[in-house]
Amino acid sequence: MAAAIVTIMLIPQSLAYALLAGLPPEVGLYASILPLVAYAIFGTSRALAVGPVAVISLMTAAAVGGLGLATPAEAIAAAVVLAALSGLILLAMGLLRLGFIANLLSHPVIAGFITASGILIALGQLKSILGIKADGETAPELLASLARHVSEINLPTVVIGVAATGFLFWVRRGLKPFLLGLGLGSRAADIATKAGPVAAIAVSTLAVWSLGLDKAGVAIVGTVPTGLPPLGLPVLDPGLWRDLLVPALIISLIGFVESVSVAQTLAAKRRQRIVPDQELVALGASNLASAVSGGFPVTGGFARSVVNFDAGAETPAAGAFTAIGIALATLTLTPLLFFLPKAVLAATIIVAVLGLVDLSILRRAWAYSLPDFLAVAATIGITLLVGVEAGVSSGVAVSILLFLWRTSRPHIAEVGRVPGTEHFRNVLRHVVETDPRVLTIRVDESLYFANARYLEDYVLDRAARSTDLRHVVLLCSAVNDIDMSALESLEAIDQRLASMGVALHLSEVKGPVTDKLARTTFLDHLSGQIFLSQHEAMAALTAAGESPGIRRVG
Amino acid sequence: MAAAIVTIMLIPQSLAYALLAGLPPEVGLYASILPLVAYAIFGTSRALAVGPVAVISLMTAAAVGGLGLATPAEAIAAAVVLAALSGLILLAMGLLRLGFIANLLSHPVIAGFITASGILIALGQLKSILGIKADGETAPELLASLARHVSEINLPTVVIGVAATGFLFWVRRGLKPFLLGLGLGSRAADIATKAGPVAAIAVSTLAVWSLGLDKAGVAIVGTVPTGLPPLGLPVLDPGLWRDLLVPALIISLIGFVESVSVAQTLAAKRRQRIVPDQELVALGASNLASAVSGGFPVTGGFARSVVNFDAGAETPAAGAFTAIGIALATLTLTPLLFFLPKAVLAATIIVAVLGLVDLSILRRAWAYSLPDFLAVAATIGITLLVGVEAGVSSGVAVSILLFLWRTSRPHIAEVGRVPGTEHFRNVLRHVVETDPRVLTIRVDESLYFANARYLEDYVLDRAARSTDLRHVVLLCSAVNDIDMSALESLEAIDQRLASMGVALHLSEVKGPVTDKLARTTFLDHLSGQIFLSQHEAMAALTAAGESPGIRRVG
Repeated sequence: MAAAIVTIMLIPQSLAYALLAGLPPEVGLYASILPLVAYAIFGTSRALAVGPVAVISLMTAAAVGGLGLATPAEAIAAAVVLAALSGLILLAMGLLRLGFIANLLSHPVIAGFITASGILIALGQLKSILGIKADGETAPELLASLARHVSEINLPTVVIGVAATGFLFWVRRGLKPFLLGLGLGSRAADIATKAGPVAAIAVSTLAVWSLGLDKAGVAIVGTVPTGLPPLGLPVLDPGLWRDLLVPALIISLIGFVESVSVAQTLAAKRRQRIVPDQELVALGASNLASAVSGGFPVTGGFARSVVNFDAGAETPAAGAFTAIGIALATLTLTPLLFFLPKAVLAATIIVAVLGLVDLSILRRAWAYSLPDFLAVAATIGITLLVGVEAGVSSGVAVSILLFLWRTSRPHIAEVGRVPGTEHFRNVLRHVVETDPRVLTIRVDESLYFANARYLEDYVLDRAARSTDLRHVVLLCSAVNDIDMSALESLEAIDQRLASMGVALHLSEVKGPVTDKLARTTFLDHLSGQIFLSQHEAMAALTAAGESPGIRRVG
Repeated sequence: MAAAIVTIMLIPQSLAYALLAGLPPEVGLYASILPLVAYAIFGTSRALAVGPVAVISLMTAAAVGGLGLATPAEAIAAAVVLAALSGLILLAMGLLRLGFIANLLSHPVIAGFITASGILIALGQLKSILGIKADGETAPELLASLARHVSEINLPTVVIGVAATGFLFWVRRGLKPFLLGLGLGSRAADIATKAGPVAAIAVSTLAVWSLGLDKAGVAIVGTVPTGLPPLGLPVLDPGLWRDLLVPALIISLIGFVESVSVAQTLAAKRRQRIVPDQELVALGASNLASAVSGGFPVTGGFARSVVNFDAGAETPAAGAFTAIGIALATLTLTPLLFFLPKAVLAATIIVAVLGLVDLSILRRAWAYSLPDFLAVAATIGITLLVGVEAGVSSGVAVSILLFLWRTSRPHIAEVGRVPGTEHFRNVLRHVVETDPRVLTIRVDESLYFANARYLEDYVLDRAARSTDLRHVVLLCSAVNDIDMSALESLEAIDQRLASMGVALHLSEVKGPVTDKLARTTFLDHLSGQIFLSQHEAMAALTAAGESPGIRRVG
């Protein structure tokens, strides 16, 4: 019974997302059969339902559209290759435990990307609601194209499209309270709400058929081939595979992040666990299953998983039953879809994606921190103005660069001895003793390539300003790692200080770091020494019996 | 006098690097006049000499070669645009203080890149030594092309080329000890060593002229136009500028890193300072100066700067004198270069770049750490097999990914109370008290997008395994920042824990982090509380009078 409900609800979604991806509607059904079986076998979430989803369909349209293909058959072949590539990438990431790569997509970037994609998708569907032709991959292109063709509006299509959109919005917002007010149970009201799109499809199809509206210019779905998906291998065209590699990588990452976040949300509700690396394998298998059955890239979708969850799916087998249901539908129901107006499918999509649009992320990020705001703004702006792949890539690049920028300027303090103790503190905050011949610097971060040069600049700059200076001590108590760049920076600092007649010493170096340094020749060449404690360093370096330490007030 | 010596030495270098960049020899002279003046005005190093250098010339050849241009005039125009773009990029980076971007080029990546470039350059010059035609941009292409044409070897060219190469190697390694052995002063021996290439050029030119070897198939430089560089603006072809943008960016970064490292090395010898952001401005101005005078991208080179330094350059004016010297040479000496065999210029380049090749970086990186080794190996391998731009980009990408990977798994410890104290320590290392209803987790790193999901997985996984659990406390004493991704992960953790009937609390949150959280609605929705100290948290959460804390041995 749960499977039957889910099946009926998934059919319009599957058709609509195939059209969104620029593919014939049956491809959406094909992508909703074998992938479910593959996920049931390999997945770790009990409620997740995989299949076509809005954002991935948009990205498929962009990737396939970018190839400039001539025929629909070539577009299907390219979508199949995209699914195969995504499947292989996800599988490889799962087997190599590379799931962490998805972490590079920060929350603000994903939120911005989904919002911008929702806007792009809704704009792209307006043409079907208005019954005109329009194309474009960016918001300005779509708007300009809509404006150019606005005089060609088809009135019956607009009536159907607007009515369907209005109805679906009402179903989403107003139907449940209405039914509850009529005394219906909460569960039944939920199911009725989710069946709304099915009702819209049935009514509009009947209307078009009975009134002959297709002859009045209403675009209909037309013949959807009956029968199970054709099994076969993707075309092995190296040029095509190479062209689709980067889009497939981005689709894989976005799909994985979306799917895992849905799975974790649902799992937590029942105190269950999911295993992210195994999820990669399962999504990889699902996409490969989609590829061998003539489908396009799929992932775990929120809407379809919630249907599954609410329908009480308790075992992965529910997914297999749903697959059987959709297979039966493709064998029997497709002739009924002949008169289905495309405007209603467009309305289904618009209502679904406008639920994803949340521009408040910009305001929240602005209130929270500048780097987060810049990442969101870059993602939304570039997705709308340039395209989906450029948008995601820019968002990731901006987040990473801003993070590296922040850590590239570690906190560095000049320290001195708290009188009468063995403690060394920041000269700017404490009353401490220092010696003009000895400069002690504490770095509050591991040393790595992005901050190595900053340390070089800081130390050399500071040393060049002190003519009495004879010793620089690097207090390493907060340094958990030194990478090779930082090691070479230390070597450069040592050599350049030596050219100035100043020796470099290290103190309080942690065990693992000492071990690493010991495998190099750094310690052999070092002009100074390694001291176990800073106290020991100061004692040794100021013991030459010259001028005593000078007391300074920070 | 210093300027005269430097001038004579720079001429063969400038000619050779222009040929290496795939440009007519005079372009190398043009690129060595105005850029010197621009650097003298804006630069902060007293010894740095800017001009064409080997690696940047190779990258220019790759960038210009990739455009598929038909005529030498188009290649010059493209090189000029490349110099203009590099100049603008460097200037913008300097004015916006973006010098830190160069930090993304880690030491191992630069070392690997220079080594691989040296190999590519030497392979590319072999054709001139052998007197055959060969082309290709990757090591396999070059080798295959050399093998195909090896039967066309020109004997007189090989004799000249091999003799020149052998002579120059001997000059570099054996001449100075030999001269010192003859009783010459160290300074004079140095100058003689550096004049080696000039001698090779004079002797070989005379030999070709007197023996008529050009008629025997020895390729000669031919007519080098006499006269000062033609001043003018770069062509404003938007397509060309766009195509060269990425190569120009990479050339700018590599050039900047090379130049700053040379400048710092020389400055340290005299206890002087350079200002990296100002160096960006100076290099930008130098490249713009090169662009308006028909030159190609330039940077501060080690070889030419050392000549400058040894010749006693003490003020930026030395650069201006050198510029005048080279300008005089282009006015008067170019007819003397007519019979100069290209094989000798190739020998000059080979001897110079083989000094840069240092494959021991692979061994040293392997001994030091796996991430560093992978970055070097990727850089060398991809530079040799795919090309210079792909090589540098891969090296940078690998370094950043491995760094993010390392910080994406922060150290997380479960802590308990040291009996009788208010201290909380790792349960695995200390004998501490814990309560099965309360889980306290300490994260030893700031929370940001790359580790946010790891924390989510860790906490939810840990919580799902403890059925008695009622409270999770996040001890934030080591958390210096929480970015928006981490904030949303904390919200997700909170909601998912709430679905399990578990409350989330924070303790010991630092002031700046509290301020940031206070600007959001996080604290309003949080299922638990914020405690000033961990002790307070435990006191409040275990005070319900239920089962007492259980002593555990770590």
